[in-house]
Amino acid sequence: MHITALAGGVGGARFLRGLRQHLDGRDDGPHDLTIIGNTGDDITLFGLRVCPDLDTLLYTLGGGVHEGQGWGRAEDTFSVQGELAAYGAVPQWFRLGDLDIATHIARSQWLGQGATLSQVTERLAHRWGLPEQRIRLLPMTDSPVETHVVLAGDEPSAIHFQEWWVRLQASAPVDRFVVAGMDRAAAAPGVLDAIREADVVLLPPSNPVVSIGIILGVPGVREALRGTAAPVVGVSPIIGGAPVRGHADACLAAIGVESSSAAVAGLYTDFLDGWLIDPADRGITVPGVRIVDHDGPLLMTSVETAAGIAGAALDLASALRSP
Amino acid sequence: MHITALAGGVGGARFLRGLRQHLDGRDDGPHDLTIIGNTGDDITLFGLRVCPDLDTLLYTLGGGVHEGQGWGRAEDTFSVQGELAAYGAVPQWFRLGDLDIATHIARSQWLGQGATLSQVTERLAHRWGLPEQRIRLLPMTDSPVETHVVLAGDEPSAIHFQEWWVRLQASAPVDRFVVAGMDRAAAAPGVLDAIREADVVLLPPSNPVVSIGIILGVPGVREALRGTAAPVVGVSPIIGGAPVRGHADACLAAIGVESSSAAVAGLYTDFLDGWLIDPADRGITVPGVRIVDHDGPLLMTSVETAAGIAGAALDLASALRSP
Repeated sequence: MHITALAGGVGGARFLRGLRQHLDGRDDGPHDLTIIGNTGDDITLFGLRVCPDLDTLLYTLGGGVHEGQGWGRAEDTFSVQGELAAYGAVPQWFRLGDLDIATHIARSQWLGQGATLSQVTERLAHRWGLPEQRIRLLPMTDSPVETHVVLAGDEPSAIHFQEWWVRLQASAPVDRFVVAGMDRAAAAPGVLDAIREADVVLLPPSNPVVSIGIILGVPGVREALRGTAAPVVGVSPIIGGAPVRGHADACLAAIGVESSSAAVAGLYTDFLDGWLIDPADRGITVPGVRIVDHDGPLLMTSVETAAGIAGAALDLASALRSP
Repeated sequence: MHITALAGGVGGARFLRGLRQHLDGRDDGPHDLTIIGNTGDDITLFGLRVCPDLDTLLYTLGGGVHEGQGWGRAEDTFSVQGELAAYGAVPQWFRLGDLDIATHIARSQWLGQGATLSQVTERLAHRWGLPEQRIRLLPMTDSPVETHVVLAGDEPSAIHFQEWWVRLQASAPVDRFVVAGMDRAAAAPGVLDAIREADVVLLPPSNPVVSIGIILGVPGVREALRGTAAPVVGVSPIIGGAPVRGHADACLAAIGVESSSAAVAGLYTDFLDGWLIDPADRGITVPGVRIVDHDGPLLMTSVETAAGIAGAALDLASALRSP
């Protein structure tokens, strides 16, 4: 079975780690997993190219993530950032550990030598053992794109998504999101084929606006999802009106969408076949989408619970394939 | 008194730290010190611009140097380089600590934003308290220049100076040194004036070929030294036929010059007024140069001995000014 998944950072990474464990426990393998990672969160800090979602996917799937915070490296130190602060280098609101910075240095070096982000990501994934796990991690695009936040208010101003998300903790009212560079972007090699040729396409419980929503904006991605023969199954990032984690509610409010599981599924109705929800949301309906409630909380509190959720999403995909 | 000094890395930095201590102990101050640092050793590693001599000067004068090795930061750690090795990023033969890497990241970021190396160096010097010490550190040029080593042998090949110096430990026979970029280089702002307007010009016991020799190759520097009214006094880097440290003998051999105190002074006779030597070399003569032997070994085994050597060099300059 070839599974393709769209993914943001922490939520996507935890779901996919659970999926990998679920697949490893089945006796009908081996199964391949292609992940299309959001790069709209990417930012250049201290002259280094940082890809937060790709890094969170690498670290989580490779066993190096800081479990408590869900991103960054476990047991990291902060010598470099401390020195950068002493030199007055800015910004200081984005926390970069020493082990993490090495990833950004290697990436920036290789990009500077002319490698594409796809090629760089493949080299980074090698160090994290993703090929051995039959996981292929693709950036959604090789073009530099960055989500910017146009703030609401009388004075028009825009800031980088990371400044809004990390420094302002998504508290500043948003007028709209703008993805700088997307007008010149193309899907990275393999992205559209991975959707078209998959046996199952999954949407993890990633942020529907600034993660999944950004990937859907890459030219050709939405069309590929509409056209694929594979069932497309999503996992709700909203439980009973509240996001599982992160600031999805603030992001949904910014685009005028209610923070509810049904409203999020409503963003995907042109290609979504199945939607896995929390029991608390039982009874919601979305036209054209088969909705199933999980047999437990839709919370990834451990690798095992994430594996259970991933298995339920695949069961729903199987049911959709054999109606 | 305004003192201007040309300097390479470890030897220059230790001499100048001693000079600063000597000056602080005098009652005829304050005295200003302008240092013209060699940038021929500069190299781009992992996409980061590294200026080994400027950094050694900053760290030594700022109290942050690793005393044992004479370069790099005290109590540094190596998390970043370990991770870069895990990613397969190269080269690995140049050892970069985490604290040290922060310097290179800050420098590269600011250069990337359009700052000149002079401006970057001034910002870095601020963190190390050089202005408070009345020390101004200037790179010899703002143009990127790099000393390359053309290796002797049937197969013509050239490698970066650092690869020859660090990886090969100066063991490979040299045909000649080539300074890439020097044909388009100009002295950095303030460099020529600092020589012309100084009360004393000092040459610390830096490598005469790959440190002082490279600075002398910057357009206008040698002419400024010939033309300045200030006495120019050098400290011999050779004692009894052997270099005090480093691979000066290999460098001298490469340019066909004997490893002796007299031969090194002979490289500077067009502008050199005084030459401070070790007692072991007493009796040497160089036409047009007043030679004085130090009242102790010409070895900078401590800040105090370096201060004594610096004081003796200034005494020689005074004697030259009032004949």
